[in-house]
Amino acid sequence: MAWFTRNKQEPVVVPEPVEAEIEEVPRLPAPPALDAAGMRSVADHTRYLLSLVEPLRPFGMSLLDAWNQVLCEDIDSMINVPPSSTAKVDGYAVRALDLLDGEDQLAEPLQIVDASVERLPEGSAVVVASGDVLPRGANAVLPSAFGTVDDGRVRLVEKVSVGEHVRAAGDHLRVGARLLSEGDRLGDRSIGLLAGSGIDKVMVRPRPRVVVISSGEHLVDPGSQIGHGEVADSNSFMIAAAAEAVGATVFRVAVHTNDPASIRQVITDQLIRADLVISTTGGRREDYEAVVSVMADLGLVDEANVAMSPGRMQTFGLIGDDQVPMLMLPGNPVSAYVSFHAFARPLILKLMGSATQHPAVRAIATQPVRSMLGQLHLLRGTVTSEGSVRHVAPVSMPHALGELAAANALIVVDESVEQVGPGEAVKVWLLDEE
Amino acid sequence: MAWFTRNKQEPVVVPEPVEAEIEEVPRLPAPPALDAAGMRSVADHTRYLLSLVEPLRPFGMSLLDAWNQVLCEDIDSMINVPPSSTAKVDGYAVRALDLLDGEDQLAEPLQIVDASVERLPEGSAVVVASGDVLPRGANAVLPSAFGTVDDGRVRLVEKVSVGEHVRAAGDHLRVGARLLSEGDRLGDRSIGLLAGSGIDKVMVRPRPRVVVISSGEHLVDPGSQIGHGEVADSNSFMIAAAAEAVGATVFRVAVHTNDPASIRQVITDQLIRADLVISTTGGRREDYEAVVSVMADLGLVDEANVAMSPGRMQTFGLIGDDQVPMLMLPGNPVSAYVSFHAFARPLILKLMGSATQHPAVRAIATQPVRSMLGQLHLLRGTVTSEGSVRHVAPVSMPHALGELAAANALIVVDESVEQVGPGEAVKVWLLDEE
Repeated sequence: MAWFTRNKQEPVVVPEPVEAEIEEVPRLPAPPALDAAGMRSVADHTRYLLSLVEPLRPFGMSLLDAWNQVLCEDIDSMINVPPSSTAKVDGYAVRALDLLDGEDQLAEPLQIVDASVERLPEGSAVVVASGDVLPRGANAVLPSAFGTVDDGRVRLVEKVSVGEHVRAAGDHLRVGARLLSEGDRLGDRSIGLLAGSGIDKVMVRPRPRVVVISSGEHLVDPGSQIGHGEVADSNSFMIAAAAEAVGATVFRVAVHTNDPASIRQVITDQLIRADLVISTTGGRREDYEAVVSVMADLGLVDEANVAMSPGRMQTFGLIGDDQVPMLMLPGNPVSAYVSFHAFARPLILKLMGSATQHPAVRAIATQPVRSMLGQLHLLRGTVTSEGSVRHVAPVSMPHALGELAAANALIVVDESVEQVGPGEAVKVWLLDEE
Repeated sequence: MAWFTRNKQEPVVVPEPVEAEIEEVPRLPAPPALDAAGMRSVADHTRYLLSLVEPLRPFGMSLLDAWNQVLCEDIDSMINVPPSSTAKVDGYAVRALDLLDGEDQLAEPLQIVDASVERLPEGSAVVVASGDVLPRGANAVLPSAFGTVDDGRVRLVEKVSVGEHVRAAGDHLRVGARLLSEGDRLGDRSIGLLAGSGIDKVMVRPRPRVVVISSGEHLVDPGSQIGHGEVADSNSFMIAAAAEAVGATVFRVAVHTNDPASIRQVITDQLIRADLVISTTGGRREDYEAVVSVMADLGLVDEANVAMSPGRMQTFGLIGDDQVPMLMLPGNPVSAYVSFHAFARPLILKLMGSATQHPAVRAIATQPVRSMLGQLHLLRGTVTSEGSVRHVAPVSMPHALGELAAANALIVVDESVEQVGPGEAVKVWLLDEE
């Protein structure tokens, strides 16, 4: 089936010249310009990475399986609600034309026929309760008070016109009405809406397959004996769970070495099942350099100094024959997590065909928040609600993983802001459901 | 494996009397008292249902698989961070005692030895950079400026005391420090914290298996031809997705009939894989009655008039030999969805061992919200954020499924409130991530 194979993307390399005198070296499109300090802005870097990745190919999926996936088609109703015309009041389903004679006077009594009639015969009526479906042929409801019953016939007291006391088919929802649009995520209520409209399959994009590769020779897997100078790998677990939370199918692979040949082998092995590779390390410079050297060997690489704190050093590549996107996260846990939210999350969402922007909300700072001009600062914060108002306090701990676990938001301080005073509103990215 | 079998719960029936002269009929514990209007409050009904259900049995799970699950143990750190003492400054790792002679004067120069030394010999020093792990035996760092190097030896200029310029092992996180507590849900950052502390397995409860059974003879599955008087089943799809969103593993089964024998067969067949059965119907009285008759036949049933709008009629049972909890939702889509959030969601969360209360937030009403005294009103609403403040407007549409799809919150108007004016704060349950 299509989505278990590599989703080949159009290569973004510059096309070979027609008259190939000199062999053109494939390269990434020109990166964005740098700022005065020689840095790339977060917005530019994000846009650049997103320009190098295409959404996965859509395919049809049964409705329930598509829960939490992103729709890649507009969907219109194929049915009317109510599906048939129904009575709004208790009374008699009638043909309005039968109620008057040729002289515009009330006609003769109507014969009451059984509700199971195939089609309402002329000159007859069916007893209906409010909400009942009208028999075919009926086009109005004569309220009970507008007739008297005598010997199985309805004697008319008042007339009604076509459509009176009838809820027409499609009154609540009409065939062709737009139900959901491309880019909508299928939540429970959207799924109910589609099912109720008779739709059992939708075009969505598959969950992106993200391979998280952990390397670094002083790292060991948690649960193993931790020797002198070694530390348990945290980043690949945290980032794997974070990618899962965004909606990816995640595979975590560990190659706890800095040997380029071994790292290269693992990356190459994993490319077949990866829509995106994310590299995490143990945070030492040599860990980082080992991976970058392999990336450069396997594909086209962009190394950038991004005007962001933490997370300045950012490396991205298109790797292997299929140009699989690969994002290398900084080694420090906080930098890695923040970089995930700044860059990996939008990439995963783009693969899913979803909106890539982090839904930012605003919160009142309860303590001063300081930043550096010219850098986007992403501080760890704790958002609380007081009544209808959100507050946020920065959180800072010497133990990086403890700090992350204590936070439930990232405080986003733009490049042009140096300080946010207590009582001022600041932008935050919420990290958990509220 | 344990969690693929039925999780037998302690029966809640009244125990058989020891001298069983008269056969005691098993029955549910006494239900809560009714209010003056003969209704049961939502709080009482919720508490009653929760008292009839026990959390699933916990089992050990590998860390990444436990993402989004609820911890059922307290977890303390098994490691120190940093794991070993490290230098805070560039200088020389030393034994503080070596720095002074018997007369409290600066001692003789220390011999510089290689950093790979097994254990720092007395009278020697190792050159360290800030962040380097100290060799065993060293207990202080002499800053570079406190010594001069001459012929492979450090001549002392100043002394330091034990622990000076050293970040002690466990300074950031100490063995035994509480990392996470029972009841915590494992998010990405919690997983990072545990992994970094060397923990690769946790005790969690399995995802509850929820079987959603759709019945009602005028219902057809979406995608099928919809005949005259038939409607496409929406509720079971919507509720299945809603249960999945809470964290359950969901199986949807349809038996589109009101024949009690057929419904009974399907329910009986499904009990083996159900931690909770949820019944949805097409909303006609006869659909509802058919299921209730089967429930009464299969187990102990509680039928209640709950002081709630919508969703007054609530039926719950403990079904089959294993007393599997079964919740019957009202047939109207809005009533079904609201009842799911009021009662099914807490039951699923209790099975998971999680906090069962809906995390309520407050929002400013932008339009008047009216309710009925004595009833908990759950209106459909749309929450928007203006700066750091949440606003909510009620949404009301003739097409019930359209109304649900347009809403992103339920406005919770307590029994004692008749009206909320524009500008006043009201409690809301958010239905999606913000």
